[in-house]
Amino acid sequence: MNLSSLTEVYKIELLNHVVPFWEKHSIDRKNGGFWNCLDRDGSKYDTKKYMWLNGRQTWMFSKLYNSVEQRPEWLEIARLGATFLREKAVRADSRVYFSMTEDGKPVHLQRKIFSECFWIMALAEYSRASGDLSAMNEAKIMLENVWDWSTDLSKVGRPSFDGEVPSQSLAIPMILLNLIEEVAGDDKETYRVEAESCINRMLLHVHPETKTVYELVTPDGDPIDSLEGRLLNPGHAIEAGWFLQHWAQYLKRDDLSKTAVDMVRWSYDRGWDQEFGGIFYFLDSKGYSPSLLEWDMKLWWPHCEALYAHLLNYSITGDEADKAAFLQVHEYAFSKFSDPYHGEWFGYLNRRGEVTHRFKGGPYKGCFHVPRALWLVWKKLEELG
Amino acid sequence: MNLSSLTEVYKIELLNHVVPFWEKHSIDRKNGGFWNCLDRDGSKYDTKKYMWLNGRQTWMFSKLYNSVEQRPEWLEIARLGATFLREKAVRADSRVYFSMTEDGKPVHLQRKIFSECFWIMALAEYSRASGDLSAMNEAKIMLENVWDWSTDLSKVGRPSFDGEVPSQSLAIPMILLNLIEEVAGDDKETYRVEAESCINRMLLHVHPETKTVYELVTPDGDPIDSLEGRLLNPGHAIEAGWFLQHWAQYLKRDDLSKTAVDMVRWSYDRGWDQEFGGIFYFLDSKGYSPSLLEWDMKLWWPHCEALYAHLLNYSITGDEADKAAFLQVHEYAFSKFSDPYHGEWFGYLNRRGEVTHRFKGGPYKGCFHVPRALWLVWKKLEELG
Repeated sequence: MNLSSLTEVYKIELLNHVVPFWEKHSIDRKNGGFWNCLDRDGSKYDTKKYMWLNGRQTWMFSKLYNSVEQRPEWLEIARLGATFLREKAVRADSRVYFSMTEDGKPVHLQRKIFSECFWIMALAEYSRASGDLSAMNEAKIMLENVWDWSTDLSKVGRPSFDGEVPSQSLAIPMILLNLIEEVAGDDKETYRVEAESCINRMLLHVHPETKTVYELVTPDGDPIDSLEGRLLNPGHAIEAGWFLQHWAQYLKRDDLSKTAVDMVRWSYDRGWDQEFGGIFYFLDSKGYSPSLLEWDMKLWWPHCEALYAHLLNYSITGDEADKAAFLQVHEYAFSKFSDPYHGEWFGYLNRRGEVTHRFKGGPYKGCFHVPRALWLVWKKLEELG
Repeated sequence: MNLSSLTEVYKIELLNHVVPFWEKHSIDRKNGGFWNCLDRDGSKYDTKKYMWLNGRQTWMFSKLYNSVEQRPEWLEIARLGATFLREKAVRADSRVYFSMTEDGKPVHLQRKIFSECFWIMALAEYSRASGDLSAMNEAKIMLENVWDWSTDLSKVGRPSFDGEVPSQSLAIPMILLNLIEEVAGDDKETYRVEAESCINRMLLHVHPETKTVYELVTPDGDPIDSLEGRLLNPGHAIEAGWFLQHWAQYLKRDDLSKTAVDMVRWSYDRGWDQEFGGIFYFLDSKGYSPSLLEWDMKLWWPHCEALYAHLLNYSITGDEADKAAFLQVHEYAFSKFSDPYHGEWFGYLNRRGEVTHRFKGGPYKGCFHVPRALWLVWKKLEELG
């Protein structure tokens, strides 16, 4: 297949089928912010607002404004999100709530740093879209908080106990590396030390001897032979691969680029379901049944991340295997997840690839992985010509 | 089908196929307590100990000793569990850990009261088996703690926020009612006021106008039209039905007995999958997709609870529909969950009834629902003659 024929497919899917769904159904023009619980046709089945998703959607509309077209309505949507995030979502101690009522009363706070991470992404990109320099300043201050908290999660209320195996999670250096890319923009040099610290911590999770990317390792990077230590999340490792690849390109480090390519390939090879197609949500590195109930489901976001990661690999390696992997995911994702009737993608399929949840938006699915991947792939296809 | 022909089936399944699995594979004779992460053949895939499950297994072996046969090895197993629970699992402030290393170092503590609840069950029944009166005393003191904490979960570290809808959860009065039954034994009158308080709180969840048992309602018993408020857990409501029925029989209250029968019937009618058989794990009361990923899976424990609940209903109502429901679950459960090769039951099936997780024990599956249901059904079948 000629990749260039897909450029228009990704552009149309993004601009005609996905972005309009969120424009039409998610915007709360009265209170600001975005509703997230949207049924197949966009109707609301809950009015709560989830701050991971409000941050991500604010980022996405700012990015569309900055990178695709300066449509005033996109900037206005980003402004509605940013205002809610700044005025309602932050507590006096700088913690960002996980969920809120539609008018901004807190419902739940996680003992994690991710609400804050997506708040930072949102404000940094919104600052560029709007020219509001104080938004960038707030993002940078919050990044310092998150950087500090990430070194000791007891600072966000997570207790630790004597019997825990000392460990580090891939999620932390990975999201920080992506955040730095988003906050730094064209000024990556300022954050070079922090970026290299994240990269070194990420590399501890990458084990060439078994072609495995572990979610959890000891502080020295050793695998942990326990339920939690053996847990693999192929989609997450694939996403980590392209986060790392962006820095490898910037730093012009071929070794790092090679590792980033491998992370995607290994995780895809292991994660692809040979029987029914699609990428498993979780696996156990030694082949036990993962304890998580949803391990064999096929979720939208690992497929979104794999689309861009494979195409990015192909753009660097020129290897036909990377192109074939991209096309395999493309065919699966567009035929299984995309909803031609109401726009956006379904989020959750069973192992056989049948839709199990009809909604388009929920507490963990918003305006993010689908449009981000469509935009990244579209732009990369344009580059490839 | 003649029910009496099944008496022997349940006895053999319990004593020859299920109990031996746990006797053989779960007992840590060195440290005390029980390993929980046991693969299909009983081999360990993690050495952590989960206190819900250690409490429940201690209870189960004590119950077998007290109600089936006074085998010294069953009392010894119960003693190993009780000793670990008393010496390792309790913190200075009386909180009970959720998970521990095999030698008893804490790994995780929940902001919930269930570890303490199963600790109480364990010590009360162990006290009757061993004659150790101080174990009963400890159970009663812990029950007072849990009773107090259950009125305000901030006492176990659960924060509350302005935007939360005031609500009460079926799980709390339901587990307390069962605990009182277990602690009181033949002396139910002592706890009559507390039991009636639990019963009244449970009844707020039962809505005849829509034949619905809600997991979450307002403090006045009104349904809550949100993601969480609409969530139904048919297996849980069925279990609540038989907990309530036991008290209805003791209190000789026909109205309560009728309600308890209805709770089981409504939840089963709504929860049974007409297409593939088996009881759904979660549903939404208004027919939206539940947000939980595993909603359409078929878990062992709702089927265990339904077996006993339907048979108990039949023993009271004599209604052929209750007998037919019992036989429908019997056929499904014995053909899908029971493992004829290695003993015990599989825990997790997909919607089609195919095994998705090969292990017999995990962080939430131990020696409890299967043997408890087999024992209760066996004894009820004997009674029915």
